[in-house]
Amino acid sequence: MSSKSGMEQVLVENEVQQVRLLDSVNDDHGGVIVELSESMDSKVFASMLKASLALWRSQGKRGVWIKVPIELVNLVEAAVKEGFWFHHAEPKYLMLAFWIPEGAHALPANASHRVGVGAFVMNKKREVLVVQEKSGIFRGTGVWKFPTGVVDEGEDICAAAMREVKEETAIDTEFVEVLAFRQSHKSFFDKSDLFFVCMLRPLSFDIEKQESEIEDAQWMPWDEYVAQPFVQKHELMKHLVGICKAKEDEAYFGFSPVPITSRISDEKSYLYVNDRDLKGSKVRMSQTA
Amino acid sequence: MSSKSGMEQVLVENEVQQVRLLDSVNDDHGGVIVELSESMDSKVFASMLKASLALWRSQGKRGVWIKVPIELVNLVEAAVKEGFWFHHAEPKYLMLAFWIPEGAHALPANASHRVGVGAFVMNKKREVLVVQEKSGIFRGTGVWKFPTGVVDEGEDICAAAMREVKEETAIDTEFVEVLAFRQSHKSFFDKSDLFFVCMLRPLSFDIEKQESEIEDAQWMPWDEYVAQPFVQKHELMKHLVGICKAKEDEAYFGFSPVPITSRISDEKSYLYVNDRDLKGSKVRMSQTA
Repeated sequence: MSSKSGMEQVLVENEVQQVRLLDSVNDDHGGVIVELSESMDSKVFASMLKASLALWRSQGKRGVWIKVPIELVNLVEAAVKEGFWFHHAEPKYLMLAFWIPEGAHALPANASHRVGVGAFVMNKKREVLVVQEKSGIFRGTGVWKFPTGVVDEGEDICAAAMREVKEETAIDTEFVEVLAFRQSHKSFFDKSDLFFVCMLRPLSFDIEKQESEIEDAQWMPWDEYVAQPFVQKHELMKHLVGICKAKEDEAYFGFSPVPITSRISDEKSYLYVNDRDLKGSKVRMSQTA
Repeated sequence: MSSKSGMEQVLVENEVQQVRLLDSVNDDHGGVIVELSESMDSKVFASMLKASLALWRSQGKRGVWIKVPIELVNLVEAAVKEGFWFHHAEPKYLMLAFWIPEGAHALPANASHRVGVGAFVMNKKREVLVVQEKSGIFRGTGVWKFPTGVVDEGEDICAAAMREVKEETAIDTEFVEVLAFRQSHKSFFDKSDLFFVCMLRPLSFDIEKQESEIEDAQWMPWDEYVAQPFVQKHELMKHLVGICKAKEDEAYFGFSPVPITSRISDEKSYLYVNDRDLKGSKVRMSQTA
């Protein structure tokens, strides 16, 4: 993102016009991004948008993004009339998109999945950390379940698992690995869900339950947890119990996070791999050599 | 979802009024869903919305969803004035949300991640299936890479990997397992990315490249693939080469999909687990017993 193209004199369609243009910044893909912030009349906006589009077209620009904060919702209709469509939205803004060249657009697809985490935390007495929730489908059922939650915007899966355990029970943990994950569809409207079951090692032992969301929390003997009808009746839960049991026997290995540097930016991200197998493989290779 | 509450006579605020209400259906969480489809004047819509909200409030409803198709964008402003906010959007519609009870809303979080797949497909001659792309960051670089793509709405990760290989190269495959995955942030604006590296077994051998997106495709000797500067220079690629090498030696196990039935609906979904370890663990358990 660079060079502002803001207020300029432009030659459009062979007429010399003095037109106010929308402030924009170039993106890394030959397009422009407009972030609206000034309230204005929708007719004024419409004429600025038309003039800006004509300029961008003459400059060979490709994708155009307009971020409309919810306070400026009065400007959305004018943009749609110019051919913009909805790309994505968050509570406080709507992102509109437009593709200038001929043919199908090459803009990125929208986010399609919500990401959740569940935390398997077992102490040395074979007790597992469980909670009863104040709301949701398990409210009032007496079911004891692993702490779970939704991964926040920009949050790592491993960080989210540790955060949820800390928030719901005040227990400090160390992340060990992703034991399994489930992908399901139509979780809300047409969106899908990825749910990562994580194993964490407890670093503290005194539980303090979260008042707002948690009815109760405890260290529960593993066999009692497994004996619950809720666990016995559901296919997913039975699979997870099998995995946690194998994990306890040190016979199961999931994916652990390895920090890597992204190709394009310098931002760190995590690659989740079966580290035990990788290390074993390296040992074998060096022994053969 | 059931009982339409549509056009009704309602008693609101001690006045008998004959008001046209918005058609709505109840959702499973004590709320209602309105899907607008009829074009109307925004003032008419505003008065119908006010009356409907008064009714829903008197009925103790919780969340209210309004799905606005892009053709009816003229109605968005009126809803925002009543306190609705943007929940999510797709090219053809905007989903507005409102929470009637006091306190923080309990509506689901929006989708935060786009999901991508990369496919490691090796034949019995130790050749790997690779492509050169016509667009994107590798365009014109001469880099040979694994087939990759974005998971479609409602699509399983394993299905997406097989589809992308088929589309780009016409090779039929059988899904084996997820070898690793990477989570990265700010992939487009504030959204994150989950990228699953999958191993697939080829079931056919004659390549036919996709004209629209693929410049070239081939079976490339594994050592040639690894020797590319693009592979040698990047941390992620080097990790992946290590994993694929260990996999080739049958010393690495990822997560394979196990079909399970969802708790709530009867829809099938996939749980991805380290199946080798699970099976090994069961064998050991039965041997001990």
